[in-house]
Amino acid sequence: MTTPRPTTNASLITNVRLADGRRVEVSIVDGRIAALGAALSREPGVPVEDGGDALLLPGFVEGHTHLDKTNWGLRWYRNEVGPKLTDRIENERRWRAESGHDAGAQSLALARAFLAAGTTRVRTHVDIDTDAGLRHLDGVLATRDTLRDVLDLQIVAFPQSGLLGRPGTDALLDRALGAGADVLGALDPALIDGDPVKSLDLTFALAERHRKPIDIHLHEPGEIGAFTLGLLLDRVAAHGMQGLVVVSHAFCLGALPERERDALLARLAELRVALLTTAPPSVPVPPLTACRAHGVTLFGGNDGIRDTWTPYGSPDMLERAMLIAMRYGLRRDDDLALAFDCVSGVAARACGFEAYGLQPGARADLVLVDADTLAHALVARPVRKLVVAHGRVVARDGALLAR
Amino acid sequence: MTTPRPTTNASLITNVRLADGRRVEVSIVDGRIAALGAALSREPGVPVEDGGDALLLPGFVEGHTHLDKTNWGLRWYRNEVGPKLTDRIENERRWRAESGHDAGAQSLALARAFLAAGTTRVRTHVDIDTDAGLRHLDGVLATRDTLRDVLDLQIVAFPQSGLLGRPGTDALLDRALGAGADVLGALDPALIDGDPVKSLDLTFALAERHRKPIDIHLHEPGEIGAFTLGLLLDRVAAHGMQGLVVVSHAFCLGALPERERDALLARLAELRVALLTTAPPSVPVPPLTACRAHGVTLFGGNDGIRDTWTPYGSPDMLERAMLIAMRYGLRRDDDLALAFDCVSGVAARACGFEAYGLQPGARADLVLVDADTLAHALVARPVRKLVVAHGRVVARDGALLAR
Ligand SMILES: [Zn+2]
Ligand SMILES: [Zn+2]
Repeated sequence: MTTPRPTTNASLITNVRLADGRRVEVSIVDGRIAALGAALSREPGVPVEDGGDALLLPGFVEGHTHLDKTNWGLRWYRNEVGPKLTDRIENERRWRAESGHDAGAQSLALARAFLAAGTTRVRTHVDIDTDAGLRHLDGVLATRDTLRDVLDLQIVAFPQSGLLGRPGTDALLDRALGAGADVLGALDPALIDGDPVKSLDLTFALAERHRKPIDIHLHEPGEIGAFTLGLLLDRVAAHGMQGLVVVSHAFCLGALPERERDALLARLAELRVALLTTAPPSVPVPPLTACRAHGVTLFGGNDGIRDTWTPYGSPDMLERAMLIAMRYGLRRDDDLALAFDCVSGVAARACGFEAYGLQPGARADLVLVDADTLAHALVARPVRKLVVAHGRVVARDGALLAR
Repeated sequence: MTTPRPTTNASLITNVRLADGRRVEVSIVDGRIAALGAALSREPGVPVEDGGDALLLPGFVEGHTHLDKTNWGLRWYRNEVGPKLTDRIENERRWRAESGHDAGAQSLALARAFLAAGTTRVRTHVDIDTDAGLRHLDGVLATRDTLRDVLDLQIVAFPQSGLLGRPGTDALLDRALGAGADVLGALDPALIDGDPVKSLDLTFALAERHRKPIDIHLHEPGEIGAFTLGLLLDRVAAHGMQGLVVVSHAFCLGALPERERDALLARLAELRVALLTTAPPSVPVPPLTACRAHGVTLFGGNDGIRDTWTPYGSPDMLERAMLIAMRYGLRRDDDLALAFDCVSGVAARACGFEAYGLQPGARADLVLVDADTLAHALVARPVRKLVVAHGRVVARDGALLAR
């Protein structure tokens, strides 16, 4: 006679609440949610974690950051930079040459901070240029490898200095896509590259060659941004890249006449092009309500965190959700839930992170916080009581556990 | 022969840094800063607090909140309120009738949270209306009395339901000003009261009778806000109330043609009328740079904190300073210092809080945080290592000490 052995790699979290108020337990087997319900059966020998009546949330998603640029954990960087985009690009170049900035160590420090705050999926843009070559990519690939069991890191090969201005950049992007980058980045084809058609054609050709998605930084404002966006949408259709393109920032959509804006939103929806916003309070942003009405996916991220560009940003995605909610003037609990979607389910779908969520079969990436409701969690941003990644407890009370 | 006795009520804080980088010690005598310098003489017997290389900041100033409305510390209030100002007013009225909201207990809970986070001066608007009478005022007066040794609470008698709509409101405001309110409040003379001339005339007459300053909520947008603001400025001049009036919100100044806006800013400067902003990201705000260029005082506050109006807000004024800096697109360290001024020195001057600052003679209201620089403190919002109010340590590591 054989007696049933306890399932290996199994655990149970009891006494937690879902955002809809239901009290549940979560059974985890082999890094996945095996069951989620009111009173699960308990196999003997399976370790039980008492959730202490915490609110249970899915691990968060950072949809757009720059792990390689950050000064996280270093001495404060004093920002004395001029106001233009090119000032900031040149300042960063100078500073890197002087400071010996280490993209590997820095990306690891910030990725660990994300994990401690409950984020288990990150899309990061990594600078590729003719000064640094693939050095930043190598650093972030090392970070991805170090954290591969607990964090999904999606890498965008990003031409921070433009694609056309410095000969050889396209060859570097080509190598980056071969060397492990998941997505091809791009930057302001008109206002940085000066030739939107040539820039976009090169970008789409590169992406097609590697069969990789595209995520473009489009800061171009108003009418010029609308023009570039139109060119981009033409190419999404021509290259059959429906569902594989993200436009980050898209400030132009916040400052167009409604009719022109709605025509672009309709095309974005049709071509399944998603928009990423950091919800900056000082510039126009794509309109949340109109995006939802048109069926356009809008998700959220920090952009850079404490780097030579910006002093702001935080690896706490609950804070980003709060800032998104504030930017869109949301106050009702059901509206705040939409802001949370921007850094959880919607972001996972837009980036293509798989097996995401709180349903059985999803990867067991879980966050427990002491909060009455989801809206409460957003505005209070309580310390993360427990973070589970791939079924394994990785942080308690805001601090990563030693490996 | 007499030996010198150690000064009573004296203490010394060593090993702290000012925002400009100087390392100093602070000598405190009888609740005031007696000296601040590199190596102060030490009287025997005077207790010494080692600042541990922390950054030393003056106690913060909350320029506009509503302590009486907050649900701070209570079970989460689920916001299902309609979008209009009148929806929110009516919703709050209904909810108060149902919930037995206690303005005394709630204002004390939030005031204590402010203190723990380093704020030692607060201007709070208190609802006066024909339903509640002076009940909220009585509650906040009790809080002021409870905390009188450690917190300056400035009370604005605020007609949340309007001045003209409910007969008897002016008599209640009159009683409130006699009963301990420091400032007369007001609300949207055109769009709520429907008669801007009559409403403003009544407000200025009441203020004059009691020789009290005015702080008006002006949400009215664009051209109607500009019209009301013009009427108000006429009355500041006619009543000789230069330097005694604050306009809170003043959204209209963020959405006028530049020439019209600048004409109003010039009059605001001439009449020394200050502006208060919460720096909301979803509506226009008075322009910081233009205000500074015209010499108009602009300072900051939360407005309501976790009440039936809004889920947002925090008693942490470093966070408010960060939100102000983000709203105005500030990135440089010297610009972030301007945002901090909005919740410290500039706010103290605008509200008339006396003996404020880090100079000898000022009241010893001090905050110590672990941060490299002031900008770092704003974006990191570290836990308050030490809070001193009126020369006395009131909080350590974010928690109030037992009295
Ligand atoms: Zn970016
Ligand atoms: Zn208010």
